[in-house]
Amino acid sequence: MSAPTHTVPARSGRAVPLPAGATLEIINPTGDQVVDTWALCPPDLDEHLSMEHTRTALGRLVPRVGDTLVSDRRRPLLTLAADTSPGVHDTLIAACDVARYRLLGCVDHHDNCHDNFHHALREIDLAPPPVLPAPLNLFMNVPWSADGELTFAAPPARPGDHVQLRAEVDLVVVLSACPQDILPVNGRHLTPTEIHYRVTTP
Amino acid sequence: MSAPTHTVPARSGRAVPLPAGATLEIINPTGDQVVDTWALCPPDLDEHLSMEHTRTALGRLVPRVGDTLVSDRRRPLLTLAADTSPGVHDTLIAACDVARYRLLGCVDHHDNCHDNFHHALREIDLAPPPVLPAPLNLFMNVPWSADGELTFAAPPARPGDHVQLRAEVDLVVVLSACPQDILPVNGRHLTPTEIHYRVTTP
Repeated sequence: MSAPTHTVPARSGRAVPLPAGATLEIINPTGDQVVDTWALCPPDLDEHLSMEHTRTALGRLVPRVGDTLVSDRRRPLLTLAADTSPGVHDTLIAACDVARYRLLGCVDHHDNCHDNFHHALREIDLAPPPVLPAPLNLFMNVPWSADGELTFAAPPARPGDHVQLRAEVDLVVVLSACPQDILPVNGRHLTPTEIHYRVTTP
Repeated sequence: MSAPTHTVPARSGRAVPLPAGATLEIINPTGDQVVDTWALCPPDLDEHLSMEHTRTALGRLVPRVGDTLVSDRRRPLLTLAADTSPGVHDTLIAACDVARYRLLGCVDHHDNCHDNFHHALREIDLAPPPVLPAPLNLFMNVPWSADGELTFAAPPARPGDHVQLRAEVDLVVVLSACPQDILPVNGRHLTPTEIHYRVTTP
């Protein structure tokens, strides 16, 4: 398990090829940093990790350790193999984008997970699909109430908390260190940070 | 308000062009029938009604009367103008498809909302987008618990209950009378039925 640790700089994204059987460990250095996460099935990037199909398969809003997440064709793609955090993640909220920050009052350009997804795929010479899939928002804290109200809250994870995702098929995983600094999505200090990851093969 | 009433036969779908300002009334004859609902923005069918962007915009799992539902580019597309039902609808669950029924034990072909979407668009000479957007499941009852468990339950709507959706831009709306007859999504009798709709222009 001496796989090298890689860094995704604050406010940016990376695409990580993940062969079947390999495990991706995603580390939250501060505990406060949300990681927007996608998985795609090359060569057909129209097949991707799907939050609505995963909720349907699990009968649950948020996956737990042992759960297998599925594609929009209901194929098992990733298993949540380990999670040292309190298990608070989000499957409900869209990735941030230029339009989102404009609605939040930004006049100038704002880094965003939509663009990070596109840049990350282009860096490894893949053409992004025309529609951005809904992300798995690791460490994101969006509590729901009994009557369905949603709140954007600070993550309850601790420094160094990490999750492990095991690939059930050959995948490309895209990670974005979410640059949200207007809502407390990335902690009360509104300071997005880098994230770390490690790939281990069996 | 003497607009003609149209029928979507049980287990099938229809595409309904809905110009900006027009209102689509969707009627649940038995109270038990779920209507998978999509909205697309021709000529660019990659822009569509998005459940994850709508939840983000509303801060709520389920839209209420007065709420405006948005596209994957965060444009206002549809306003929920009226709702005589108890307001129980779903934004969490994927449309049913052949793979879903296979997982539920079906060996033979089963009608499904995925195929209904494709057939409905082809009937009006539109090419379906490569990835099916998550539907707005009108009248669908998927309660969530405090710890995020989801249940497939019978709808609490009453015979004749209806919703009105007002188009904010020119749209094509696709309606599918969900053919689910294994889970009690369409009522305890497991008998999918037709639905009715009406378009009124100002």
